[in-house]
Amino acid sequence: MTLPSLSTLPSADGCWRNLRLAADLAQTAQPVAPGARACIAVVDGQIAWVGAEAQLPERLAALPTHDGQGMLATPGLIDCHTHLVYGGHRAGEFAMRLAGASYEEVARAGGGIVSSVSATRAASEDALVELALPRLQQLLDEGVCAIEIKSGYGLALAHERKQLRAARRLATLGGVTVRTTFLGAHALPAGYAGQSSAYIDLVCQQMLPALANEGLIDAVDVFCERIAFSLAETERVFEAATRLGLPVKLHAEQLSNMEGAALAARYGALSCDHIEHLSATGIAAMRAAGTVAVLLPGAFYTLRDTQVPPIEALRAAGVPMAVSTDHNPGTSPALSLLLMANMACTLFRLTVPEALAGITCHAAQALGLQHSHGLIARGRPANFVLWPVQEVAELAYWFGCKPDCTIVRQGRIARTARPVSEHVA
Amino acid sequence: MTLPSLSTLPSADGCWRNLRLAADLAQTAQPVAPGARACIAVVDGQIAWVGAEAQLPERLAALPTHDGQGMLATPGLIDCHTHLVYGGHRAGEFAMRLAGASYEEVARAGGGIVSSVSATRAASEDALVELALPRLQQLLDEGVCAIEIKSGYGLALAHERKQLRAARRLATLGGVTVRTTFLGAHALPAGYAGQSSAYIDLVCQQMLPALANEGLIDAVDVFCERIAFSLAETERVFEAATRLGLPVKLHAEQLSNMEGAALAARYGALSCDHIEHLSATGIAAMRAAGTVAVLLPGAFYTLRDTQVPPIEALRAAGVPMAVSTDHNPGTSPALSLLLMANMACTLFRLTVPEALAGITCHAAQALGLQHSHGLIARGRPANFVLWPVQEVAELAYWFGCKPDCTIVRQGRIARTARPVSEHVA
Ligand SMILES: [Zn+2]
Ligand SMILES: [Zn+2]
Repeated sequence: MTLPSLSTLPSADGCWRNLRLAADLAQTAQPVAPGARACIAVVDGQIAWVGAEAQLPERLAALPTHDGQGMLATPGLIDCHTHLVYGGHRAGEFAMRLAGASYEEVARAGGGIVSSVSATRAASEDALVELALPRLQQLLDEGVCAIEIKSGYGLALAHERKQLRAARRLATLGGVTVRTTFLGAHALPAGYAGQSSAYIDLVCQQMLPALANEGLIDAVDVFCERIAFSLAETERVFEAATRLGLPVKLHAEQLSNMEGAALAARYGALSCDHIEHLSATGIAAMRAAGTVAVLLPGAFYTLRDTQVPPIEALRAAGVPMAVSTDHNPGTSPALSLLLMANMACTLFRLTVPEALAGITCHAAQALGLQHSHGLIARGRPANFVLWPVQEVAELAYWFGCKPDCTIVRQGRIARTARPVSEHVA
Repeated sequence: MTLPSLSTLPSADGCWRNLRLAADLAQTAQPVAPGARACIAVVDGQIAWVGAEAQLPERLAALPTHDGQGMLATPGLIDCHTHLVYGGHRAGEFAMRLAGASYEEVARAGGGIVSSVSATRAASEDALVELALPRLQQLLDEGVCAIEIKSGYGLALAHERKQLRAARRLATLGGVTVRTTFLGAHALPAGYAGQSSAYIDLVCQQMLPALANEGLIDAVDVFCERIAFSLAETERVFEAATRLGLPVKLHAEQLSNMEGAALAARYGALSCDHIEHLSATGIAAMRAAGTVAVLLPGAFYTLRDTQVPPIEALRAAGVPMAVSTDHNPGTSPALSLLLMANMACTLFRLTVPEALAGITCHAAQALGLQHSHGLIARGRPANFVLWPVQEVAELAYWFGCKPDCTIVRQGRIARTARPVSEHVA
């Protein structure tokens, strides 16, 4: 599969007129009156101006016009937690479990994370790219403009490298901002049973420095859980990352409260993710550190979890909440960020504005991209989506749908909605 | 919005070679060995033959070839329970509830089913078609070839007629099989408080005969529930339908056990739908009558219901289970039948083969279309989908994705998957 190269796509330069703006997701010089048509001016692939059409500065009025057809403009979406690059898939395991197979039987049949590690190790870098591309395309098709991709199915230097290199190539092939996260401490590889400390040595002393040196790591993550790595092991990885000047984040308190969030906050973590069992201590620490809470309703749903993250307390504390697919072959084979917004509302009771901030500005913050992404604002790369909806709430209300939107990504028109006609012929 | 007319699309006539078949969803003359490539021959828009390529009869071998590229063939999908035609939407209400509004506040703001009735009454037939088309397109895009559409937001003769006529027009515009269901007994319209018997008189004596006479009704449905119509009122509608020779179906036991299923079975109902609170008596009656159990996980999910339908008992009794979107603006704004298959597995623990039968052959049976739809078999109209997946389980495993499939609908090629390339350039 190949994607059209962004450079062959039409430039988005010009004045995108006849738009509506989603409140709080655009930064206009002057307030836009309710109902007034808005305009986004794009010059050299950057947003040069955004506001009410009536206030468009004269110097920009001569730009060629793109008719927004009254559509609703939001920033490009941001998927801030994915494991998009891996070999194989686990549909067979999904079917086996539903047919009544026990955990043991699935494991005997080669299932579980082990199967993803084997398939990822067996795949070439080219094959990993090829397998991830249609998945990436699904996300791009609904307006994703920045995505985080983790390693963690290699669990050995060469294979972690392969995953991260594949992620970098996806950025070029997809014409999309990719933030890579090294998750060598995802699981204990075969051969290290009872020797997790030795494996953490390898992560900290070999993999991390080598891959950082190759420019493959934008952030460092750990799966901190009873069934994965301890708090002390997590801290060792965080120390190594910090020495290398890399920001950290954490798979925290998903299955139990390990007080991982407080540890992560001490290291100034970008985000703590999952956090179904997050404590009041954790929330306070995240608030103080400016750490984003990343909610992953797709995994919650797939695992039929019943422990909802402490939304009310996070809201009260003012901790920014992001929402992401957690796309992975085991616990969240989800390929829609809009569906995750719907699930965040339906399952976690986020409000619609919270869910939409969760897949835009707060997701940007979880990736350290808050100054360039997640908001329609002057001086940023032109990443925005025009949606054929009347109300912003529709983005979280309809589910299972890929709206027929217009997408501007990296200053190019990546997709064009069908023209809106008023009547059926 | 306009859809390309089916008649302008390329004919699917020819030999679709290099396919794999989903077990149980194709009826081949001889068994196809595992791994053997299959072939579907289409002549004059009908399936003329299906089986292993090696066994293709000589008389068909000369037909032009369509390369199936190793994709997996299933019958066209069938969405057997929808309320696709209505005015307005209820995204504002969705947002209000999440923001903490009480049921009363939503009602005062004009929310609830009343708002859909008002908006439907206010819309012209043209407007209803226009509004439903993009929703229909979402379903068609993932291979839906037959769909049921209910009335029930008009609640007065002229407006019920308008909904049903819009549904008939969607069949032509979408190039898709539409089965219309009259659901005049959906809710009590304004002006009939405390007079449900008088409203049922209107349904049975005025609306039903008139609309049946106009050829607008393929089946008759009732919402039988404490908050809707009683068992006795349901029976009056069923009697009227039966007198007119129309098959019946029932919104049954969603919120409580009313023993509606047993009543429906006595009238030989095509299906009982929702059935979260279905009793053993209801199951036995459905089994004896050959009534299909239609599962609606989208509504279950949206309502955050916890009462799972009695799947194990239905399975044990051999009652066929269908799965549908229940697309409607209040309790299931769902626009993906594949997502419903995933939800049926995840939330209701259907096996993958059950979920796939649920959106194909058993859904066909729920519409009385089991002899023409829901199975790839000789003599049927060519309605099939080619999926770019390795395993059939992938159709229920990935979620929130609209696979890049090839769709043959009513003997025409309605959509073509991007060619599969082996390597990234
Ligand atoms: Zn994860
Ligand atoms: Zn319904």
